Amino acid sequence: MRPVNIIGVGMTRFGVLADSLVDLAAQAAFEAMTDAALASGAIDHVCVGCQNPDEFTQRGHVSTHLADRLGLVPAGATRVETGPSSGASAVEAGFNMVASGAAEAVLVVGVEKMSEVDRGQASRILSKMISFEDEARYGATPTALAAMIARRYMHDYGLTRDELSLIPVKAHRNGAKNPLAHFQKEITIEEVCSSRVVADPLTLYDCSPTSDGAAAVVITSDDLARNVDVPRDAIQVLGIGHATDYFAVQHRHSLTSLSATVRASERAYQMAGIGPADVDVCEVHDAFSILELVNVEDLGLAPRGASIDLVKKGSLEVSGEIPVNPSGGIKARGHPTGATGVAQIRDIVLQLRGEAPPGLQTQSPRIGLAHNIGGFGNNIVVTILGAE
Amino acid sequence: MRPVNIIGVGMTRFGVLADSLVDLAAQAAFEAMTDAALASGAIDHVCVGCQNPDEFTQRGHVSTHLADRLGLVPAGATRVETGPSSGASAVEAGFNMVASGAAEAVLVVGVEKMSEVDRGQASRILSKMISFEDEARYGATPTALAAMIARRYMHDYGLTRDELSLIPVKAHRNGAKNPLAHFQKEITIEEVCSSRVVADPLTLYDCSPTSDGAAAVVITSDDLARNVDVPRDAIQVLGIGHATDYFAVQHRHSLTSLSATVRASERAYQMAGIGPADVDVCEVHDAFSILELVNVEDLGLAPRGASIDLVKKGSLEVSGEIPVNPSGGIKARGHPTGATGVAQIRDIVLQLRGEAPPGLQTQSPRIGLAHNIGGFGNNIVVTILGAE
Repeated sequence: MRPVNIIGVGMTRFGVLADSLVDLAAQAAFEAMTDAALASGAIDHVCVGCQNPDEFTQRGHVSTHLADRLGLVPAGATRVETGPSSGASAVEAGFNMVASGAAEAVLVVGVEKMSEVDRGQASRILSKMISFEDEARYGATPTALAAMIARRYMHDYGLTRDELSLIPVKAHRNGAKNPLAHFQKEITIEEVCSSRVVADPLTLYDCSPTSDGAAAVVITSDDLARNVDVPRDAIQVLGIGHATDYFAVQHRHSLTSLSATVRASERAYQMAGIGPADVDVCEVHDAFSILELVNVEDLGLAPRGASIDLVKKGSLEVSGEIPVNPSGGIKARGHPTGATGVAQIRDIVLQLRGEAPPGLQTQSPRIGLAHNIGGFGNNIVVTILGAE
Repeated sequence: MRPVNIIGVGMTRFGVLADSLVDLAAQAAFEAMTDAALASGAIDHVCVGCQNPDEFTQRGHVSTHLADRLGLVPAGATRVETGPSSGASAVEAGFNMVASGAAEAVLVVGVEKMSEVDRGQASRILSKMISFEDEARYGATPTALAAMIARRYMHDYGLTRDELSLIPVKAHRNGAKNPLAHFQKEITIEEVCSSRVVADPLTLYDCSPTSDGAAAVVITSDDLARNVDVPRDAIQVLGIGHATDYFAVQHRHSLTSLSATVRASERAYQMAGIGPADVDVCEVHDAFSILELVNVEDLGLAPRGASIDLVKKGSLEVSGEIPVNPSGGIKARGHPTGATGVAQIRDIVLQLRGEAPPGLQTQSPRIGLAHNIGGFGNNIVVTILGAE
């Protein structure tokens, strides 16, 4: 397998934005191509991670539309969709094109524009990613499923409501320093606990928002990474793992572990030739606060039930031993679903380059991990990046 | 790049079917896995080509749903979407996974279930793949764009309405012998010309139907192809080309040529180390009758304006020099959009194995080509297969 590098990254502000889906995608893409110092004619293929442009924006065929908008015709163009892990899956598709030798340079863009529909319609669109037959028809929503996991985790490990609130508080503390984050203000434990209950025990501040935004990365072979006009430290993609779990939560062996994270990370660690102890910084998929605890344990970064101890000790802070979500995570950076996985990888690249925003740069990381969940915990991609 | 083989194929009947999207996909997938004599545990990844499950069937997250339904969890699962070329793009994604060494075996399933919505709603869903800003807002539809191409082709090359009718007549003649085709009855030139005008000069019989159906292929490395329980002649994927064109037809240089076909086929021929003269059998994307003529010329199989002469001489018949669409093509086999590209490749595999249905087997073909169009002529994948 040929080595694969990320030589350029770009990202829009996340939030409720006026620009169209394709304009957002183009802004992130142009920034990534400029960052890569790569002529647009060098791009062989565009992979777009996007969950549902047809229903969120009433526009389809986003891959061709974007290739045209970017002036990349006749490059190939493909949309990749795995629910909210569409971004990481698009990076995986681009990785495979370069690793196989089918392409020298692939532009990967993750994008979603969710604010053109009202909140109820957004919920209906997003709920199509859970099982209709086993979940949605009985009134279940992604938030309700997350609440069930939170209740079980509290029962099994004694987690308290105040402890759980530490997760969004940390997310907002980091997001407040991230100039592209959807939410750039700190919150308190009291605010989390007293905010509106969405699905008991989860309150508004335990849940990620729906956002607009885009992120992009340029993936290339070694040859191309060395031959751009302004070469910079290339970041290597060391490993990718992608695994599924049973569609419906009720069919799974555990409520407090996502086995797809365990399988995907095992695969990614093996491919990268590293273990959890080698990871210096992570972005994990905290669509709901409880998931950050579950993810940290499933990734092998903490024993079962012990992740909250790391939170309380400050180990997951920017200055901690294993910084988790220095960007603010999905909770504070925002969650334009198709963009999230690419944004995580873009943020890890900045960390490895030492170019994170002031106050968010972790200490000389060499290996970073991005963890992106699709569906409700059943289509998960773990990507491991390394600085040279 | 590692050699990549197709060792199993499957397909449902195409037509208006009672089964659900995932049940159709599962039927084709199980047939392909059985044909491959491969244990389901050997599948590393499932790639699903599907244009728009959320709007056609009100169900989403089809990749995970299918992995679960097939008992393939924890294999990775990804949906690939490029409009009606989603099927070939999914095969391309699976090819890249095996070629790179990221996977040993990938199941690729193309599927669409279009009959749950009424005809008007289907048109609205499909029209999202043309440019809203430059085409749809002015009332253009894919059929109207095809009609414009037909008019221009008639003007430039003197094609007559009766000559154009030979294309659907040939499609239906072949489809009548294909037990899985949507339409299994012959039609006459008179019937084509006297059928209802959809967009002048195109009549009902110039246009492909909306269909339900699924097709599947199992893609593997050489090692795995040799080590299955019941090895059979593996068909090798010799080349894949994927190219875009400008989103809106009005921005293109020509109405009578799809430059994305030219670019994609150049790339595929180069990768395969062959030229058009080496192709023994093809399946091309005849969503509208006029496109078969355009495609044959763009693929380099006939000079400009001369493809109709090949039709009149019988060269494109099953028994001709260069058989085109022995399956009945999109016109008669049917067009469940996400399934079409995989069905074309499945049909070429059967041709190369010598296993086509009675009356449809071409003479000892060694090299076959599948040509799949996404959008309106702007996202095109050409796949070249070879028998050993």
